[in-house]
Amino acid sequence: MEMSLGQLAEYIVSLGMACEVDGDPTVQVGSVATLDEAEPGQISFLSNPRYESKVAETQASAVLVSAEYCSPRKMNLLRTPDPYAAMTAAIVRLHGYRRHPRWGMSSQATIASTSKVGADPNIAPYVYVDDDVVIGDRATIYPGVYIARGSRIGHDVTLFPNVVLYEKCILGDRVTIHAGSVIGEDGLGYAPVNGKWVKIPQVGNVVLGDDVEIGTDCAIDRATLGSTVIGSGTKFSNLVAIGHGTRIGEDCLFVAQVGVAGSVQVGRHVTMAGQVGVVGHITIGDNVRIGAKAGVINSIGAGQSVLGQPAVPVQEAKRQVAVAQRLPELKKEMRRLRQELDELGRRFETRDEGCEPSPRGE
Amino acid sequence: MEMSLGQLAEYIVSLGMACEVDGDPTVQVGSVATLDEAEPGQISFLSNPRYESKVAETQASAVLVSAEYCSPRKMNLLRTPDPYAAMTAAIVRLHGYRRHPRWGMSSQATIASTSKVGADPNIAPYVYVDDDVVIGDRATIYPGVYIARGSRIGHDVTLFPNVVLYEKCILGDRVTIHAGSVIGEDGLGYAPVNGKWVKIPQVGNVVLGDDVEIGTDCAIDRATLGSTVIGSGTKFSNLVAIGHGTRIGEDCLFVAQVGVAGSVQVGRHVTMAGQVGVVGHITIGDNVRIGAKAGVINSIGAGQSVLGQPAVPVQEAKRQVAVAQRLPELKKEMRRLRQELDELGRRFETRDEGCEPSPRGE
Amino acid sequence: MEMSLGQLAEYIVSLGMACEVDGDPTVQVGSVATLDEAEPGQISFLSNPRYESKVAETQASAVLVSAEYCSPRKMNLLRTPDPYAAMTAAIVRLHGYRRHPRWGMSSQATIASTSKVGADPNIAPYVYVDDDVVIGDRATIYPGVYIARGSRIGHDVTLFPNVVLYEKCILGDRVTIHAGSVIGEDGLGYAPVNGKWVKIPQVGNVVLGDDVEIGTDCAIDRATLGSTVIGSGTKFSNLVAIGHGTRIGEDCLFVAQVGVAGSVQVGRHVTMAGQVGVVGHITIGDNVRIGAKAGVINSIGAGQSVLGQPAVPVQEAKRQVAVAQRLPELKKEMRRLRQELDELGRRFETRDEGCEPSPRGE
Repeated sequence: MEMSLGQLAEYIVSLGMACEVDGDPTVQVGSVATLDEAEPGQISFLSNPRYESKVAETQASAVLVSAEYCSPRKMNLLRTPDPYAAMTAAIVRLHGYRRHPRWGMSSQATIASTSKVGADPNIAPYVYVDDDVVIGDRATIYPGVYIARGSRIGHDVTLFPNVVLYEKCILGDRVTIHAGSVIGEDGLGYAPVNGKWVKIPQVGNVVLGDDVEIGTDCAIDRATLGSTVIGSGTKFSNLVAIGHGTRIGEDCLFVAQVGVAGSVQVGRHVTMAGQVGVVGHITIGDNVRIGAKAGVINSIGAGQSVLGQPAVPVQEAKRQVAVAQRLPELKKEMRRLRQELDELGRRFETRDEGCEPSPRGE
Repeated sequence: MEMSLGQLAEYIVSLGMACEVDGDPTVQVGSVATLDEAEPGQISFLSNPRYESKVAETQASAVLVSAEYCSPRKMNLLRTPDPYAAMTAAIVRLHGYRRHPRWGMSSQATIASTSKVGADPNIAPYVYVDDDVVIGDRATIYPGVYIARGSRIGHDVTLFPNVVLYEKCILGDRVTIHAGSVIGEDGLGYAPVNGKWVKIPQVGNVVLGDDVEIGTDCAIDRATLGSTVIGSGTKFSNLVAIGHGTRIGEDCLFVAQVGVAGSVQVGRHVTMAGQVGVVGHITIGDNVRIGAKAGVINSIGAGQSVLGQPAVPVQEAKRQVAVAQRLPELKKEMRRLRQELDELGRRFETRDEGCEPSPRGE
Repeated sequence: MEMSLGQLAEYIVSLGMACEVDGDPTVQVGSVATLDEAEPGQISFLSNPRYESKVAETQASAVLVSAEYCSPRKMNLLRTPDPYAAMTAAIVRLHGYRRHPRWGMSSQATIASTSKVGADPNIAPYVYVDDDVVIGDRATIYPGVYIARGSRIGHDVTLFPNVVLYEKCILGDRVTIHAGSVIGEDGLGYAPVNGKWVKIPQVGNVVLGDDVEIGTDCAIDRATLGSTVIGSGTKFSNLVAIGHGTRIGEDCLFVAQVGVAGSVQVGRHVTMAGQVGVVGHITIGDNVRIGAKAGVINSIGAGQSVLGQPAVPVQEAKRQVAVAQRLPELKKEMRRLRQELDELGRRFETRDEGCEPSPRGE
């Protein structure tokens, strides 16, 4: 779709963001592209300052920038306080969200007669829905999805290919799960008996709140008893592992390969960067930020930012790293201190002896 | 199912564990729940001391506790030496293990005519079994499973949805593989030739012993030559990666996101916590315990506990961390030492000069 | 297949490698095995010096060794400058690459009428190909694969079971993707608006070059705008996560559980060992080598080898680790320095006082 810069600015304003055209409002744009790749007829954006040098050379017909941005040359700008949010709006307006294939209710899907599917279903071939499942309206379920008995699925849910839900899982409205993720598999629950691992039946389930989005190839264990919970609005990237009985708050953001052990309480709006690990049975407060690869072994109070293995407040972690990188130097300095101290001691002894007669002879 | 505390205690005793009712043996319980979530009619348990404070407020009709436990109020207790094992028994008795859907031999599954399936099969639609496969009795195979040619599968095996077995893999009796895991894919086997990676055919296989349970979205490489082996009774959590030709002993326990490179020998009853990494071509002894996120780069003797990157004995690792966290402080102390030493040296020189005439003049 | 050592040596020479029989050229070998597992009639190899002690006891009929290797006993050797490459050649010759099942074009696959499949297809049951897809000649597509609309797939491509391609992805010739991997899922693209995560439509795609091989359960995000690119000849092991908009050069090798965030530029022939993590928006030069578990937070110039968290040049990292492991000792030494310095200071003061009258009285 094509629209003028003036129309696009109006649209962004209509969403509650300030936006002004600085240039020719009649210029037409049809799509969004990065500064590097944009061609005439496209609009680009500058939100990460590290790409600022690319503005001078972009072929874009216009660029979304901050209100105070000073451009290197005469060009069409859309000025807005939050260029990233405005870019999001522009992509939504010019490109839109994914359009799914339309399967209706495929005759090649298998839906148990005891299960119920809501209005306007979009269920692909090779989908299998077991007994006593309830699926809300407008569900889009791709090929290869398996839904075990007793699951409850909200409205407007999208399950990409080969997603698996184990029994009795509960999904809120507008949940999206990307290809290959598994919800509700058994956790690592075994009792050690005589050197063998005796399996503990995992009789709980998983509950995903509204608007949860789960990436590809994630694994969310069902609780042993009760529920593993992912709060509404929380988003996961790929290959994330969540242990049994863990409860994660609303509006969290977990980057790829995060692993959280079982029985952890995570607050709301917590961010965990890539490859973070969290041990079991601890509590992470609201608005905590955990840096990439951190290993969290103790509870963290609300609002803290942590980093490192084991994780400590980020300033402390950075100090530790700074010192650690100077460790070989520190070690050398310590050797010098030792040598000088020994030398001074020897000299003191010698001088002492020389000096000694004087006071002693006094 | 419901039973009295007396009956439940008897059942636990029948499994070889001591168990006594301390309270009213006629009280009925129907299910197990955590202390937090239990309601009247449920039995709970206390095994992890960090949850001790929750006993006072639980709504449970009874609690499984240790023999010497001193309860905060009058309540019905089942006393037993190992409350965790007893809780496992109670869940097995009151809830039981998962009951699978019953497919018999689905006409929508594809089984090659050259393959054999044992007695009482339970094989779902959209399963594909290639040539020359032998499957034992009472197999439960969920939708979307693919079994390549020449595989040998024992009795009472459960393969959850979308599990994939590459060719010639061998599974023992009572093996369980959770959804999305892949057994026997090619390892990263390439010969570097003129800056290109030339693929080495991966002609070995994977052998899983009896009672192995593999979590979700795991990847176990086939051996280049010979076999990658997972010993009987070993249990994996999710997203675990095992390299080609690695051999893992019996009764090991690997937590989520563990990665073991190729040609590693792992003993029996080894535990690896979450996100552990192990380099190739080393040997890990029996009963070794590897802490979360450890990076193992050297062989480890039997019975050791290690931690850290690179992994060292756990006491040493904890000392290292303790010192590392005080590094900025140590650095400051070193600066003070330097200043004081220099100062002392200067004073010594000065005094020395003052003192000098005396001995020299002697 | 069986052949004589003489014939095998000739074959290796025909590939451009030197190879000479040191022993009986008429001895027949039919397959390749490790030194440990080889039986008469098999050929083995010695390339990793840590297995040298196994040569004396191998049952192999012959061993591929380096030109200058000195064997512990009389045995049949094939001498060649690169035994690993020669072993690869021997496996290719004696075992060959995997032979796929032959499905032709299965009537149980679903191919949209708007999609085109090239010559000699090998497409399994339960495959789903959506609209406007173009698939090249001789494609092998296993059960459970899903290919979304608008994808372009080259010749001689192999997609193992349950691989998922999201819309508009582009695969070069001879691409191989192992079971369960997902190409082109949405990245973690959200704009934070009033404490909520607003989804940014991910309108880009993924481009895999020729001869790319992707392991099991990998996740390669589509770009938000433009393309995520994996260069020709690059090979991934399992459970690798690549963020949106990242571009990886040719002939790279990534070991299992590597995670690269979004908008990263990776040069050609870069190796990343297991569990490496790379933050977003940085540049990794050609021929860089990144050690296991490294956490890369800054751009790296061409040709460097790095290690550690955060990653630093490998020599520096090793020095840091060496010192870190001696930290408790250093701390003790610092305490001794403090004590001795204080003691010397005290003695100096005392002596000073004793000595003082002398100079002062002078």
